[in-house]
Amino acid sequence: MSSLSKVDYKKFFWPIVIAAIIWLCSGFRPDGISLEAWRILAIFVGTIIGCIVQPIPIAGVAIVGITIAVLLKVVPMEEAVTGFGSNTVWLIAMAYFLSRGFVKTGLGRRVALIFIRMFGKKTLGLAYSLIGVDVLTGSATPSSTARAGGIVYPIIESLAEVYGSSPQDGTERKIGSFLIFSEFHGNNITSGLFLTAMAPNLLAATFAKSMGINISWITWFTAAIVPGILSLIIIPYVIYKMYPPEIKETPNAKEWANDELAKMGKITVAEKIMMAVFVLALALWMLSSFIGLDATFVAFLAVSLLLVTGVLNVSDILNETGAWNTLIWFSILIFMANELTKLGLIGWLSKTMGSMLSGYNWMIVLFVIVIFYFYTHYLFASGTAQTSAMYSALLAVAISAGAPHLLSALLLGFTAAIFGSTTHYSNGPASILFGTGYVKQSDWWRMNFILGLIYIVIWIGIGTLWMKLIGIW
Amino acid sequence: MSSLSKVDYKKFFWPIVIAAIIWLCSGFRPDGISLEAWRILAIFVGTIIGCIVQPIPIAGVAIVGITIAVLLKVVPMEEAVTGFGSNTVWLIAMAYFLSRGFVKTGLGRRVALIFIRMFGKKTLGLAYSLIGVDVLTGSATPSSTARAGGIVYPIIESLAEVYGSSPQDGTERKIGSFLIFSEFHGNNITSGLFLTAMAPNLLAATFAKSMGINISWITWFTAAIVPGILSLIIIPYVIYKMYPPEIKETPNAKEWANDELAKMGKITVAEKIMMAVFVLALALWMLSSFIGLDATFVAFLAVSLLLVTGVLNVSDILNETGAWNTLIWFSILIFMANELTKLGLIGWLSKTMGSMLSGYNWMIVLFVIVIFYFYTHYLFASGTAQTSAMYSALLAVAISAGAPHLLSALLLGFTAAIFGSTTHYSNGPASILFGTGYVKQSDWWRMNFILGLIYIVIWIGIGTLWMKLIGIW
Repeated sequence: MSSLSKVDYKKFFWPIVIAAIIWLCSGFRPDGISLEAWRILAIFVGTIIGCIVQPIPIAGVAIVGITIAVLLKVVPMEEAVTGFGSNTVWLIAMAYFLSRGFVKTGLGRRVALIFIRMFGKKTLGLAYSLIGVDVLTGSATPSSTARAGGIVYPIIESLAEVYGSSPQDGTERKIGSFLIFSEFHGNNITSGLFLTAMAPNLLAATFAKSMGINISWITWFTAAIVPGILSLIIIPYVIYKMYPPEIKETPNAKEWANDELAKMGKITVAEKIMMAVFVLALALWMLSSFIGLDATFVAFLAVSLLLVTGVLNVSDILNETGAWNTLIWFSILIFMANELTKLGLIGWLSKTMGSMLSGYNWMIVLFVIVIFYFYTHYLFASGTAQTSAMYSALLAVAISAGAPHLLSALLLGFTAAIFGSTTHYSNGPASILFGTGYVKQSDWWRMNFILGLIYIVIWIGIGTLWMKLIGIW
Repeated sequence: MSSLSKVDYKKFFWPIVIAAIIWLCSGFRPDGISLEAWRILAIFVGTIIGCIVQPIPIAGVAIVGITIAVLLKVVPMEEAVTGFGSNTVWLIAMAYFLSRGFVKTGLGRRVALIFIRMFGKKTLGLAYSLIGVDVLTGSATPSSTARAGGIVYPIIESLAEVYGSSPQDGTERKIGSFLIFSEFHGNNITSGLFLTAMAPNLLAATFAKSMGINISWITWFTAAIVPGILSLIIIPYVIYKMYPPEIKETPNAKEWANDELAKMGKITVAEKIMMAVFVLALALWMLSSFIGLDATFVAFLAVSLLLVTGVLNVSDILNETGAWNTLIWFSILIFMANELTKLGLIGWLSKTMGSMLSGYNWMIVLFVIVIFYFYTHYLFASGTAQTSAMYSALLAVAISAGAPHLLSALLLGFTAAIFGSTTHYSNGPASILFGTGYVKQSDWWRMNFILGLIYIVIWIGIGTLWMKLIGIW
């Protein structure tokens, strides 16, 4: 009946060869790394390379990767499937369903048109205003995934639809790609701006406290405000130049949006319910740090309400392939990355780093540590995971080298926000925004690498100077 | 844009009211049951009733149920999502993907036509021959889910398609419903026939051994052969009378199938690969008890091979909504049912049973225990779970009442096969076969209740007599 789907077999070469080389070099691995840790590293690196060259789409690469891991007895099957039961991954899935409700009811289109009416003259203005939404909700929404996936993405999806920009028909660069990528960075920057903008920050503060370093909300914010604001201004503009949208200006945007809004007529019941549920979710996400709510639970609650009111039906959910796609590949990558930590590879890496740096001037030590912390994020699929695995160890190295305590604690804290800007699996927002298909993987990695350098200059360089100025050290 | 989906609000009445009554009666709960256990029972019963009356489809009910459980602080969100990382559930998902490969390549149609050519004159004959496939692979495939979902279901799906029978257009009763339901029972009976036909049997044998009772493969088989063969003959016929297919005979089936096979032409490359992968999976499932392979791993391997060869592509997987549907509801029900055990409700139940029965004649005790074991399966979503939770405790009660050891161990063992025939969430095969939508939930429960009585007569009544005859007791 059907013929075979196209598979680019040549592209299997690099993932297999590099994984095999790492695997076979296990005899030369450094002391202190177990064979299991080395082998999961081989599989993980192979899978990541497979996700980059893509002989088949990444969800397929991930399934094949985890199958090989079980085949080679690196992990038991029972354990490998536990990756699909991760809280973050289900927050992402629920965010996709929420966003379906926005599109389905037409509320997304309405909000998008209002955005266009207000900020739509220039596409760059639109990007800044979307990031504004992230910043406004950021100080009180400690889940960056909830902000990116549950709050801003639904608006972007509708904006792209209004402008006829979609990866399905090759029109993604019209406007969607630019907005998605800008929001990804806006989200990361927001995460650095407030202590309460994402979980890794709170974790870092806890670790710092256990080492006698107190980071208050206001200390964090004062230290972050200059690099934060600078990034919020500069980064979207750099993206605009580096990765321009095809539609740059829509001079008659306001009139057009007004016409379209008029055509849409009065707000429907479905839209009203959708709006009420969204406002409730937003409020709960913002309250969550005070009343101890889980962000994933808020998303489940919102989706439940949409199901019970008939705004969404089960088949909308089952057909939301973006959610299932992310569920497959992101769960598997998170699982593998966590194994690296669990099997001691990350601990060994931090320890080795420390012993290599002993005897150097603290400035050098702190700088090297921060850079190391930044780039090792290529091995992680979550900021929380890396913070848990490395923050304390690296902070201890910096302190024992004589680096100012608060400065070190804050710089490492900020790094956990900006290292989000590395891979497409770096954190929840990356997986969800990348997963929409608007930005090609090669673009994602290439541009993020460049932007990463800018972040280092702004947050580590200028940030350190600013913290001197305000007396942090 | 879109209006609201239809939600039958009246149908929310019973699930909510009954759950609320149980919840509010927590003050009257028996000693020895914790408040947490009582509350999860309330939520579980409410969710099950919701799944029966279906104000919205069951995946929606399950999402709402687990959301309420988290909302009422019965379980934390982080824990609730772990249900999605279950080995069984991902075996089911992979089985759905395998079956997609059968249909997509046309191999399923070809095999179905060959089945029709050989057995297709009468629909009842077709059912017996499908069950034959389950029996033939049963002694060596210790995953009943792999047999039902990975081996037999793909053939049934294609058969139904060939006969134009599908729940999508209301033609499910033509032939599909009957074949699905017959295979469900054939699968359960096969599971009882061989010690190695499903995991709970092996678990039961292990528990029995730890109590000094040896059950060999041949002992089990000799004891099971009479009730097993009787069930294999009687049950499909009873289903045929109780739930007849609309197409009962196709006198010219052979000629027609021959024509259709001729039209299909030579076997394609995609079909050949599909067949090779299927034979490999079959062989590995059959070998799995000897070489210690995980059934879920075999399914991941098969799907990986289909992806790598291009027989399936990622979008086939993402669009296989049956898999996602089962993933949602079955994971949630498994999770809730496991909580009942974890929180001690099941342990309390078994203990209470024991103390209530002390002093009675062993025949009465054994009979009551078996019946109790059978019907408490309404509270479980897995045979393995219930065997783990109750087998040893109940066996101990029987033995202390003076019941013959081997007889008691075997009767309880068989019960774990036949109690599969209760709900649509009773085990993996139930979830996958029910999940196809061919059999209405009310039919599933009603007919299973009746068939359950027949199983009790055959396996417990006749089985006990047979075991007397061959000297088991």
